[in-house]
Amino acid sequence: MKDLFSQSPDGGTQTLDQQILALFRAKPGGVVSGEELSGVLQVSRTAVWKHIKGLKALGYRIEAVPSQGYRLVAAPDLLIPEEIAAALVTRRIGRRVISFRETDSTNEVAFRLAEEGAEEGTVVVAEAQRRGKGRLGRRWESPTGVNLYCSVILRPPLLPVKAPQLTFLSAVAVARAITATTPLHPFIKWPNDLLINGRKVAGLLNEMSSETEKVNFIILGIGVNINMRRDQFPADLRHPATSLFLEGGEEVSRLAFARALLEALDALYDAYLVDGYGPVRKEWLALSNVLGKRVRVTFQESETVGVAEGIDEDGALLLQLADGRVERVLAGDVTILQAKG
Amino acid sequence: MKDLFSQSPDGGTQTLDQQILALFRAKPGGVVSGEELSGVLQVSRTAVWKHIKGLKALGYRIEAVPSQGYRLVAAPDLLIPEEIAAALVTRRIGRRVISFRETDSTNEVAFRLAEEGAEEGTVVVAEAQRRGKGRLGRRWESPTGVNLYCSVILRPPLLPVKAPQLTFLSAVAVARAITATTPLHPFIKWPNDLLINGRKVAGLLNEMSSETEKVNFIILGIGVNINMRRDQFPADLRHPATSLFLEGGEEVSRLAFARALLEALDALYDAYLVDGYGPVRKEWLALSNVLGKRVRVTFQESETVGVAEGIDEDGALLLQLADGRVERVLAGDVTILQAKG
Repeated sequence: MKDLFSQSPDGGTQTLDQQILALFRAKPGGVVSGEELSGVLQVSRTAVWKHIKGLKALGYRIEAVPSQGYRLVAAPDLLIPEEIAAALVTRRIGRRVISFRETDSTNEVAFRLAEEGAEEGTVVVAEAQRRGKGRLGRRWESPTGVNLYCSVILRPPLLPVKAPQLTFLSAVAVARAITATTPLHPFIKWPNDLLINGRKVAGLLNEMSSETEKVNFIILGIGVNINMRRDQFPADLRHPATSLFLEGGEEVSRLAFARALLEALDALYDAYLVDGYGPVRKEWLALSNVLGKRVRVTFQESETVGVAEGIDEDGALLLQLADGRVERVLAGDVTILQAKG
Repeated sequence: MKDLFSQSPDGGTQTLDQQILALFRAKPGGVVSGEELSGVLQVSRTAVWKHIKGLKALGYRIEAVPSQGYRLVAAPDLLIPEEIAAALVTRRIGRRVISFRETDSTNEVAFRLAEEGAEEGTVVVAEAQRRGKGRLGRRWESPTGVNLYCSVILRPPLLPVKAPQLTFLSAVAVARAITATTPLHPFIKWPNDLLINGRKVAGLLNEMSSETEKVNFIILGIGVNINMRRDQFPADLRHPATSLFLEGGEEVSRLAFARALLEALDALYDAYLVDGYGPVRKEWLALSNVLGKRVRVTFQESETVGVAEGIDEDGALLLQLADGRVERVLAGDVTILQAKG
């Protein structure tokens, strides 16, 4: 974990950095004396100074105010636990956050942590990914500092065959977060792409460790293009891609987006554990861009054409074929052919 | 891997130990001179002597024959690559074998190796397991030196929803291995227990790493009670258990069984990749002890009673209920209530 940025401690307690930031934020004007910091936190003035220096290194603008102490002038839009946790209201998700400057893949880190027993709701985020993973072995472009790359560990009491339901849940959560932080209208393209104006803005890669009759854990992998510029997209993308910035015309706070996403996930997952898949499916269907349309689904060498009628309990896309039969499609890439006549 | 016994090298080449054993076995009478060993293997006499000593430590009986060399008198019934590989005829499975004196769980080791990229067909075996895993979080009794505990890494090009098909494939392979090495008649109890005379003799625990639309790898975990004695079973087992020895009245060579199992798995998997699930399903149904019988399936708090009609593409047990409807049961414990009238 050499590229580790910062992580919240196990068990939901606050780090010293988080406590210092909380003290700054509780003060109108944001000035706190070294003496007060040292007294409240029960550490030496030298330790306080060391932590202030560490926060500056993370991108916090903290000024010395002669004979008064320190003032917090600005906080960075960095996806670190100190900031994500500061205003997060969730029950399970994000109680522990682990942030990286850069990592191979947040899904890989989360998978390893889950195997080692990390608790449900643990979140792994990174400013950049060296080998960001897309679905079906594809690459996910992960330039530094402009987007959100995060992975959430869940341990639902499910049969493995029901796991795709959580893919739909995470798509709905991303749509909610977009709606909460921008004026944009997202659509979901089955199974797990988020589109704005027909261009892909987010993707989901959910991975699972399971036995035949039991889910060990699921990793919800979520990549959202937030402030990515046109020239940061590779030229050879197979589908048009975009970012919230490109569609909405203004920058979006990555932190605000991350908090909105984790809160949406938390609320949806909470409801899912009580009420099941029904409400998620209903919201997903309302956000879908394919219902009632004629689509072609390609997967490896096969191709199916039909009118999209819905999704079933197992997440399969239901396609009405030309002969009237309904086929369950379990995987593939969807192309919309035309609106149904 | 401190309890590692022995492992075959990557890429299917032979260890020096394996080459030495092959030379012994090629000789009628089994006597080979130190000079010949040294010459053929291109190592010093001292190195030969060191390896002979190592083989003795593994349990081989090798005698010095004055002025002639060494004689291999007996090989141990140990589940080590030197022996398993010696007479194994397979295409994929068992080309690499990793053996442990003792390990927590062969499935855990295999899962970790698969994550690190171990090739399809890699086999992990152990003489004993400290925390042998049964299905649904249960324990699998794993005393030392009497049974077979092994895990096989597969990387099938499958949708995750089809993965239970490989559970049935491994059940059929165990049945074939029992039939090949004993006069006993095994039955399969859905989903994955092997029974002889109504008592459980083997269990399967298959684990998977997957994405929504892709299997990363599957671990076939197989535990077979081979020469286990009555007093080695715990008193509190929920179902009656047995061993091949207890049912057949004589010891079974664990090595012969392991080879028969790996060969059966290899042949079945090879056919599965070409011909699909049909032949496996047919053989499974012929071995099933529930078809046409009234059974109760309990899972967590739910219970379903019906007449077992078969298994479907996804491995679900098809139960005809009292009202004539057919229910798909995805998980649970089966109790046979009575033969259908």
